[in-house]
Amino acid sequence: MSRALEKIRACEVLMTIDKNRQITLAARPQGAPKKSDFRLVETAIPVPGDGEVLVRSIYLSLDPYMRGRMNEAKSYAAPVGIDEVMEGGVVGEVIASKNPKFKTGDIVFGYLGWQEYALSNGKGLCKLDAAQAPVSTALGILGMPGMTAYTGLSNIGKPKTGETLVVAAASGAVGSAVGQIGKIKGCRVVGIAGGLEKCDFVVRELGFDACIDHHDNAFAQNLEYACRDGIDIYWENVGGAVFEAVLPLFNFFARMPVCGLIAHYNATSLPEGPNKTPLLMRSVLTNRLHIQGFIVWDYVSQRKEFETTMGGWIKDGKIKYREDFVAGLENAPDAFIGLLDGRNFGKLVIQVSTDPTL
Amino acid sequence: MSRALEKIRACEVLMTIDKNRQITLAARPQGAPKKSDFRLVETAIPVPGDGEVLVRSIYLSLDPYMRGRMNEAKSYAAPVGIDEVMEGGVVGEVIASKNPKFKTGDIVFGYLGWQEYALSNGKGLCKLDAAQAPVSTALGILGMPGMTAYTGLSNIGKPKTGETLVVAAASGAVGSAVGQIGKIKGCRVVGIAGGLEKCDFVVRELGFDACIDHHDNAFAQNLEYACRDGIDIYWENVGGAVFEAVLPLFNFFARMPVCGLIAHYNATSLPEGPNKTPLLMRSVLTNRLHIQGFIVWDYVSQRKEFETTMGGWIKDGKIKYREDFVAGLENAPDAFIGLLDGRNFGKLVIQVSTDPTL
Repeated sequence: MSRALEKIRACEVLMTIDKNRQITLAARPQGAPKKSDFRLVETAIPVPGDGEVLVRSIYLSLDPYMRGRMNEAKSYAAPVGIDEVMEGGVVGEVIASKNPKFKTGDIVFGYLGWQEYALSNGKGLCKLDAAQAPVSTALGILGMPGMTAYTGLSNIGKPKTGETLVVAAASGAVGSAVGQIGKIKGCRVVGIAGGLEKCDFVVRELGFDACIDHHDNAFAQNLEYACRDGIDIYWENVGGAVFEAVLPLFNFFARMPVCGLIAHYNATSLPEGPNKTPLLMRSVLTNRLHIQGFIVWDYVSQRKEFETTMGGWIKDGKIKYREDFVAGLENAPDAFIGLLDGRNFGKLVIQVSTDPTL
Repeated sequence: MSRALEKIRACEVLMTIDKNRQITLAARPQGAPKKSDFRLVETAIPVPGDGEVLVRSIYLSLDPYMRGRMNEAKSYAAPVGIDEVMEGGVVGEVIASKNPKFKTGDIVFGYLGWQEYALSNGKGLCKLDAAQAPVSTALGILGMPGMTAYTGLSNIGKPKTGETLVVAAASGAVGSAVGQIGKIKGCRVVGIAGGLEKCDFVVRELGFDACIDHHDNAFAQNLEYACRDGIDIYWENVGGAVFEAVLPLFNFFARMPVCGLIAHYNATSLPEGPNKTPLLMRSVLTNRLHIQGFIVWDYVSQRKEFETTMGGWIKDGKIKYREDFVAGLENAPDAFIGLLDGRNFGKLVIQVSTDPTL
């Protein structure tokens, strides 16, 4: 890491002060995004007007939801336009302020996009306290992914002691939090992850009861064996073949919070073969499944509760998190392509510049 | 009807008093049930022991859920065994009683099966009051189908004024009640039914705002046109092609109570072609659908509330119902095969013997 940071610092020194590097959407991807769907552009560093602040990005969050923003189709949010800066959450430092609420040196979080410098009118910008936790956690365990895990599990999953909770993408930013919260609530927690290294981490570091490798040919059998008492809660992050292995294992009154479907995000057509929807609906009916999609902002009123509770758990050592840092804004497209392919390991964060709080 | 009743009465006179006709499960159906999957058997009329009552069946209810009981597989209830009497709700008259809670002449409801006479120990048997409503309604609008509609819509559908409620199998026992309750709650209600006669009934008699014929080649387009503001609640009774036409029309935060899947009940394999599950799950995620399967007994604690409310609505003329009577127990297999095929029109009831309350 330190070598990468040195490189960044050197880069900063060399950087002509009047340039802002941005990554824009060059083309709407057909299937998996290619590097050519992104464009690195250089623009002038903007100058804040009245009420505005200029923020230097330190950490840029990369999250699977961004794939949806690259499509034309309306999802739960508007798409990013062609030649617009890619959307994304950023932790940065205020380097110039004409807004009385912020001063130079403040560390802030905001949806400032894939760029090195951003202007903000202060709306949606919140100050971070480096004394509370490393500021990068505002993108992960104490930010949107952590709050997604906390609100989705408590409002939809409703874990009860002794129940079996299965978590897809268990080593990821959301899944790792879901499973650990499930353990705090007394569930037997079975993770699903891609590869032995991730599975090992999920069991040894995060304390899940088991973790099943979905790359293994015997994945479905292994999952069934690990869920001998059936599944009471399935946290859906993935879809596709992972979901289809889960489907036969649901217990009566099982709950399925649908948080993400990363296996589908790059799909350009529906898979051919038997239509599994009748199988799914039969399970919904006979087992009285409760399936519910949600977006973390549906529970925005629970933010305070989340921050207090999760902050306490982290302080008590009850919740662990792992960050996967990639240095340099120019590497964001590649890192994002890898994220959709499961190549990251933990919360994926682009280190855009040095973190003055460390 | 009167000619059929005369026939039954003549039949009763001719009937040797020591015979009970029963319809048993002869074989587990492969696909659609055939007449040979049922067997009409004659046994002695049982004699009540201490604490028991002997009931003469008047009305036998035929309902789609019975198809599930004919399969080996565990559903939400145990299957009917081979050579066992088919399960079913019955309205009958107590003709002999050694149970202090019941006396000869009482009209009762109970799950007494497809037979002309049944013994009961009184458990699950409830007395009906013919002065309140025709006793056949204990099988329909004031019985399990009506309570299914009432509890599923209020607990899962949660209708709000101005929302669009779409009801599959709209002329059926459950669907006709769901849509009318939706109108009472201020929804715009669009039915789906098979054939113009049923659609006409649903709009003119039941007062739905529209009803779309799923036999029509332009079904999906017609449904889309009728649901110009999208769908907020979809009451699922059917599945298959009907559901797939509904799927693209869901609004944000739409609810889908899954009550039945009649299009799937006879299926022996999954349909080939594109797997629509990814499409469904994408809608769950982006629209935050809430899909929930349920069985009426999940809400058994709301029975009193249902009886009071629905009884009041019927008295006030706010809820109408239609019964489809078929005379003679021996015709139950044929009528049931037709029910799965959509050939009934309204709540399907076998008139096993004359109704002394009429």
